[in-house]
Amino acid sequence: MDGNDARLVAGERFTPKFDRAGLLCAIAVDVADDAILMVAYMDQEALAATRDTGVAHFHSRSRQALWKKGETSGNVLHVVEILVDCDQDALILRCRPAGPACHTGARSCFFRRLDSNTLQPVKS
Amino acid sequence: MDGNDARLVAGERFTPKFDRAGLLCAIAVDVADDAILMVAYMDQEALAATRDTGVAHFHSRSRQALWKKGETSGNVLHVVEILVDCDQDALILRCRPAGPACHTGARSCFFRRLDSNTLQPVKS
Repeated sequence: MDGNDARLVAGERFTPKFDRAGLLCAIAVDVADDAILMVAYMDQEALAATRDTGVAHFHSRSRQALWKKGETSGNVLHVVEILVDCDQDALILRCRPAGPACHTGARSCFFRRLDSNTLQPVKS
Repeated sequence: MDGNDARLVAGERFTPKFDRAGLLCAIAVDVADDAILMVAYMDQEALAATRDTGVAHFHSRSRQALWKKGETSGNVLHVVEILVDCDQDALILRCRPAGPACHTGARSCFFRRLDSNTLQPVKS
């Protein structure tokens, strides 16, 4: 562990560590039961918008633009709490979802499991 | 949604989607209670090694090398099940951890929450 890493781990200061593409990983979970809803990426702008509004914003890697989750569908994620990992390059957003988080209409994007080489529905 | 996305979402075929850097995001959770332990990245080699051995392997972005989690510490993650998200660019590894997942000795890397502008320990 180098000095920089030690400061990230031990300090009280929030110094999010964006990768070479300017992104960090954000996992949205439902505050009701901590189920993982979706994973997306945030740049500095998306993180600031999330903190300012209390509603999850991400950076769309395909559109290369700020993405307010649920802007079209109405299925926004109200962020109740943000957890930060040891080296500050990943976040957990504990959310109250306004509706299904997945664009397919599923509650969670993780609705399939890998069974040998095929994908099968997760038992709910 | 384009045709490619539709196939990723609807099919039974596992066709993991690596990003421009050749990586996808993998979230390790404890199969005992689904607590999120850590987040890391996998390239094709790390995913293959994980599936072949049943023990989580990642791609270390800092070292640019295959990383068997716990190789030094012994705190390996035995992968019980892999969940796949809608567009197949993120995985959940449901694991039996052999010990603390975080290099700090914490069970989870997410041991702090953001409280205004400072990081505070998560109540356990």
